[in-house]
Amino acid sequence: MPDVRLKLTVEYDGTGFRGWAAQPDLRTVEGELRGALGSVFSMFENLAVAGRTDTGVHALGNVVSVDAGGGPPAERAAEALNTALPDDVSVIAAEHAAPDFHARHSASARSYRYRIWLRRAPSPFEQRRSWWYPRPLAEDRLQDAADLLLGEHDFRAFTPAETQHQVFRRNVLRAEWHRRGDALELEITADGFLRHMVRTLVGTMVELRPEEIALLLEGRPRSEAGSTAPPWGLYLERVDY
Amino acid sequence: MPDVRLKLTVEYDGTGFRGWAAQPDLRTVEGELRGALGSVFSMFENLAVAGRTDTGVHALGNVVSVDAGGGPPAERAAEALNTALPDDVSVIAAEHAAPDFHARHSASARSYRYRIWLRRAPSPFEQRRSWWYPRPLAEDRLQDAADLLLGEHDFRAFTPAETQHQVFRRNVLRAEWHRRGDALELEITADGFLRHMVRTLVGTMVELRPEEIALLLEGRPRSEAGSTAPPWGLYLERVDY
Repeated sequence: MPDVRLKLTVEYDGTGFRGWAAQPDLRTVEGELRGALGSVFSMFENLAVAGRTDTGVHALGNVVSVDAGGGPPAERAAEALNTALPDDVSVIAAEHAAPDFHARHSASARSYRYRIWLRRAPSPFEQRRSWWYPRPLAEDRLQDAADLLLGEHDFRAFTPAETQHQVFRRNVLRAEWHRRGDALELEITADGFLRHMVRTLVGTMVELRPEEIALLLEGRPRSEAGSTAPPWGLYLERVDY
Repeated sequence: MPDVRLKLTVEYDGTGFRGWAAQPDLRTVEGELRGALGSVFSMFENLAVAGRTDTGVHALGNVVSVDAGGGPPAERAAEALNTALPDDVSVIAAEHAAPDFHARHSASARSYRYRIWLRRAPSPFEQRRSWWYPRPLAEDRLQDAADLLLGEHDFRAFTPAETQHQVFRRNVLRAEWHRRGDALELEITADGFLRHMVRTLVGTMVELRPEEIALLLEGRPRSEAGSTAPPWGLYLERVDY
């Protein structure tokens, strides 16, 4: 029987993956991680993840809980797993967790970053790592829209109409745009996010006026919101417990 | 006959290239740029480049001069060329240049950046973009060594012994290490650089003590200096005229 619950913090470049969740015959982050766990530990079970990211979405600090036994101690687990993992996924921390720690259920907040590349010329270093948007953006209008997101709202306008979500209210704790050289980044923290919520918020903030967005936060249908921004600009940055 | 001399500023991710210089049957930055120039202009000639970067080396601002005619005006040349170029190379500026402007001969200084990734865990976002060095580095000792480089010295210890260079003295105008999160970057400017000079300086600063490096700057043989750091941490950042 596995002897310890581990908390793993995982970073990955989503470009080469069909998202997080393991699927037969597709390359996924979970699939690669399960392969590495299987080669480093003699047994593991109860794998859970904080954020099941979509195809192309990146993570700087996604979190996994797993019971693992017959392998290295927690303090050497990251290094052992990284030796078994491909270059586009890395375990950046491994630590003991309480027996009732669950990467998804125990999470109190998640933070995402969405990166837009504004320069007129595309950048070889930004391809698949940001949304290239070489047209003018009214940055003050974007921050006005972000301010409206704070607090609890009904975000059903920002997730696909065909949904498995049953509750659409989420509490946004922080939403700030920051200019970083030729990039503009949204940093957003909430107790939880609906599917595609950050990408649809970004697409809508770029396309609509703040006063239109204020109306959408009252539970309007998806059809009234803007486009879903591309996945390769999105990073799951941090999970709080 | 081509009607205007252009100055092109070029950014590229060196990962997928066998360096700058065109070679038969190999993918090179110059080869891709010549292909794009040929599709955008009806004629071009006298192409010259400031820095003939090696395999794997990146550029944020390499500079090309070329006479081109029968195509878009300078102010639309960058956009036209980028449409014809692959994603890993981008023309970030195109402008008219004087008829005697020559990207290599007219350059007064070149600036390189060398990026070391220090975190214990590798980063998927840093692979092929920095030298992963997960051991302790004495940062103050690195800056002490960098301070020694300032001014004119004989740098033959920092270029391969079999060389086409005839003059080994170069004037270093700036050499500073900067910590940026989990990365440590050398920013170095000189009137010119010998082949592999920045990479060998970095490898030597990591391996040897400043007092040993001081001796090397008096024209000692290559065999007394340290290793050549890997090409994927090196960026040609800027060329001054």
